[in-house]
Amino acid sequence: MSRTIPEQLAELKDFFEKEAESIFPFTLPQAPVLGEAMAYSYHAGGKRIRPILALAAAKALGKDPRLVVPAALAIEMIHTYSLIHDDLPAMDDDDFRRGRATSHKVYGEALAILAGDGLLTEAFHVAAAGMDNSISPSGKLRFIRELSRAAGIRGMVAGQVMDMEHPDTGDADFLEQLHVRKTGAMIQISCLVPAFLWEIPEKPWHSLRKYGEKIGLLFQVVDDILDETATLAQLGKTPGKDRKQHKITYPALYGRDGAAELADSLLHEALQALEDIPESELLAGIARFIAKRSH
Amino acid sequence: MSRTIPEQLAELKDFFEKEAESIFPFTLPQAPVLGEAMAYSYHAGGKRIRPILALAAAKALGKDPRLVVPAALAIEMIHTYSLIHDDLPAMDDDDFRRGRATSHKVYGEALAILAGDGLLTEAFHVAAAGMDNSISPSGKLRFIRELSRAAGIRGMVAGQVMDMEHPDTGDADFLEQLHVRKTGAMIQISCLVPAFLWEIPEKPWHSLRKYGEKIGLLFQVVDDILDETATLAQLGKTPGKDRKQHKITYPALYGRDGAAELADSLLHEALQALEDIPESELLAGIARFIAKRSH
Repeated sequence: MSRTIPEQLAELKDFFEKEAESIFPFTLPQAPVLGEAMAYSYHAGGKRIRPILALAAAKALGKDPRLVVPAALAIEMIHTYSLIHDDLPAMDDDDFRRGRATSHKVYGEALAILAGDGLLTEAFHVAAAGMDNSISPSGKLRFIRELSRAAGIRGMVAGQVMDMEHPDTGDADFLEQLHVRKTGAMIQISCLVPAFLWEIPEKPWHSLRKYGEKIGLLFQVVDDILDETATLAQLGKTPGKDRKQHKITYPALYGRDGAAELADSLLHEALQALEDIPESELLAGIARFIAKRSH
Repeated sequence: MSRTIPEQLAELKDFFEKEAESIFPFTLPQAPVLGEAMAYSYHAGGKRIRPILALAAAKALGKDPRLVVPAALAIEMIHTYSLIHDDLPAMDDDDFRRGRATSHKVYGEALAILAGDGLLTEAFHVAAAGMDNSISPSGKLRFIRELSRAAGIRGMVAGQVMDMEHPDTGDADFLEQLHVRKTGAMIQISCLVPAFLWEIPEKPWHSLRKYGEKIGLLFQVVDDILDETATLAQLGKTPGKDRKQHKITYPALYGRDGAAELADSLLHEALQALEDIPESELLAGIARFIAKRSH
């Protein structure tokens, strides 16, 4: 009997968790509490959407998913660091994340800052030193170049600053530019991992790029809707914070129905982008999973 | 008339500043205040010892110093980020650095954290995307691998945590292990930049490695001595903080005279390591410059 798409995605997640653990087990003899703090946040029950995207994209292009695990781990480590720094008192000041106390509540602010710094730096070590020799140095270098672009001052960090500094105008273009950087860039690069590690034809490259762009925005729209409608138990973090912090959100801009319509059309566009890619059922399943979180 | 060693080192510094500025000018149209905060700390009057080491090491090996500028810039950006995070209220809580207000005093804690994250991430972008095409992808990748090791959880970040968590035992081995990571690793990798970017013979490789190890420790011993003897104006940061924070220091462990003797013998060993390298006058000059700061 063939397995359902959700079953296959769950298997892909388990596969990633096991393989990743053998690459970087988060034990540091010289600074054990640093390894512990990094592991606490890395193992805090994340959905691993970014790694699953990277593995599913590899499968869609007929590549061995095992070979993209180090790149996927690097992305997830950077995602984890961004949550730790984001939750700090000087930033969003959040006590809960995924239903557990945040890093600085458990380890103190200094160690939380350093655990974030450590995860970010080690992500580049995993990318540079953890990959299979069958992948060319140029391929690894291309990935590192794009990872540092997506995570840094042209991507996620820029988005963070735009989010913090934004004038409270409710400008839809600005909101999209902000989220393309803050959330979108790291989701899009996850879909493109195999396109950086190997030379692939232009057509699937552009399709994956478009798919990644659409689900990146979809993810944020759904997140904004959830922030308004979900409870602490469902969300794992304090709900309603965005509106309280006077952040512009999609429901605030378009109303709740308008935001839900936007989510539907982004899902539609993401699925359409996959039409050129023969083995894209898993990627389609992930897009539907992201969209379904809003219901 | 031939120029003195200090004149040549000053020229090397100017050369680095100009070349580095053309690689990364710290202007960010999307998030201008982020670029401003990064530039504020990067241009805060650092001595650029690490970049000068990288350029001098290239000259000693007969390589074009221009080609190591991106790697040297990446190292200096990581050094700058580490100072910003180090000064944060949750960490060393310092209001002054190099005689100017620290990043969080000027831009606030949130932006200081993000400026640090941005500098760290962009350093890897400069290393992956900013180097000359004449350097092989394998060479660039080797450098990124070693940079992430020296800066991260086996190097600088581990040293930071050891410094924070250390039991107040006054154990000389522990103190050395701490400083090898906290300060030494990034100084040593600066000396080894050309050894990573190009294949070089084993003998100068080992000599540079030893030289880097010795001046890394020398740097810290001198720093500890200065922290006890210098004034705010000389130091550019609050003096006497180490003892106040109950940190173990070399003068506390060996007495001021003992620490000065240790500095002398580290300088001697560093100069000895250079005997195998034909064009090493500039490297010798840097070692003497580092040692002289203590007088």
